[in-house]
Amino acid sequence: MREDYSNQLDSINQDLVVMTQLVGIAITEATQALLEDNLELAQSVIEGDAAINELNVTVEELCFKIAALQAPVATDLRLVMGGIKMAASLERMGDLAVHIAKQVRLRYPNPSIPAELAATFREMGEAAKKIVAAIGRVVESQDTSLADEIKNYDDTLDRLHRELFTAVLSDDWSHGVEAAIDVTLLSRFYERFGDHAVTVARRVIHIVTGEPYTK
Amino acid sequence: MREDYSNQLDSINQDLVVMTQLVGIAITEATQALLEDNLELAQSVIEGDAAINELNVTVEELCFKIAALQAPVATDLRLVMGGIKMAASLERMGDLAVHIAKQVRLRYPNPSIPAELAATFREMGEAAKKIVAAIGRVVESQDTSLADEIKNYDDTLDRLHRELFTAVLSDDWSHGVEAAIDVTLLSRFYERFGDHAVTVARRVIHIVTGEPYTK
Repeated sequence: MREDYSNQLDSINQDLVVMTQLVGIAITEATQALLEDNLELAQSVIEGDAAINELNVTVEELCFKIAALQAPVATDLRLVMGGIKMAASLERMGDLAVHIAKQVRLRYPNPSIPAELAATFREMGEAAKKIVAAIGRVVESQDTSLADEIKNYDDTLDRLHRELFTAVLSDDWSHGVEAAIDVTLLSRFYERFGDHAVTVARRVIHIVTGEPYTK
Repeated sequence: MREDYSNQLDSINQDLVVMTQLVGIAITEATQALLEDNLELAQSVIEGDAAINELNVTVEELCFKIAALQAPVATDLRLVMGGIKMAASLERMGDLAVHIAKQVRLRYPNPSIPAELAATFREMGEAAKKIVAAIGRVVESQDTSLADEIKNYDDTLDRLHRELFTAVLSDDWSHGVEAAIDVTLLSRFYERFGDHAVTVARRVIHIVTGEPYTK
């Protein structure tokens, strides 16, 4: 029974790690779709989201089951309760990648963003990819020293988000209202992606240290 | 012990109901602040959010405590696990009201929205206020027959969101890029507010019926 219990706890972590991998693929492909106006890749992100949603349900059910049957305490309890919330954050990160992909599909075959902003969105995509890889490592290793790195990527995303705001509001903006709104929403999806990653990292710290969880 | 346990479960529900009330006040005041360019009210929403965040932490800790000490099963277990997620959704709804209030503060003393869109935002505010009142009743009464009503309010918010999109993209739009982005983001905050309300209602249905939770 103990061994089975230990396996179940491992399963939560393993499923969460797989979720970070799938979300990493989703945001990478969504960014590539955005930069290349690639409808096929956008479609792949949209269709791939079902697997992330299913894992969210799987983690939640597993956490329920363990809570009911094993009455976990201390770190285990925090993992079981926190697992539900981490899975929810990851599921939401997948949704944000889908939002980006749907925007590509909506504008296809036209480009979704003006060419001069491609470099900024490429940088956002890189930061988003790295932040989700980092939370994957945090969940897997429980190494909370990666928290600073995650914070840095999130700061990068916030900075790029502000840069894009400045770009669309500048007097030089020549692409009209619709493109400005598109850029703002796309940029916000990346920025929120970073926020959710930080939430997951903080949750791991809470599980490992038992220190109060601050959102 | 049983009585104490029963009290603890009641506490979760009571705290969630209080959260819906506070979120209801927040969205009502945020909408009024938006329509009146009222800095004082906006400030009140921003400061009031701390109480909602605290209740989120309280509910989460209570759910942890019950899961650890009482090993709840069936409906009780679903309440304990679902309570964490409902509190998180309500906390996020509070954040969205704060986003609206901060937008008012950012533009003050200028109006945050063009006068001709006031009626649409008033309607959004009304639907948002009603949807959170409805989920308060659902949480309190566990009467899942209110789900349709909630869906209707959410549909209203989605429809108004699309209307505002059409307005800012029309050839008649004369307020420039910044105002268009402001309107789009504000509108999105209301639309997301509705989505989270639907999530809470679905969670109650899951707790009451045990039917699979569909997001």
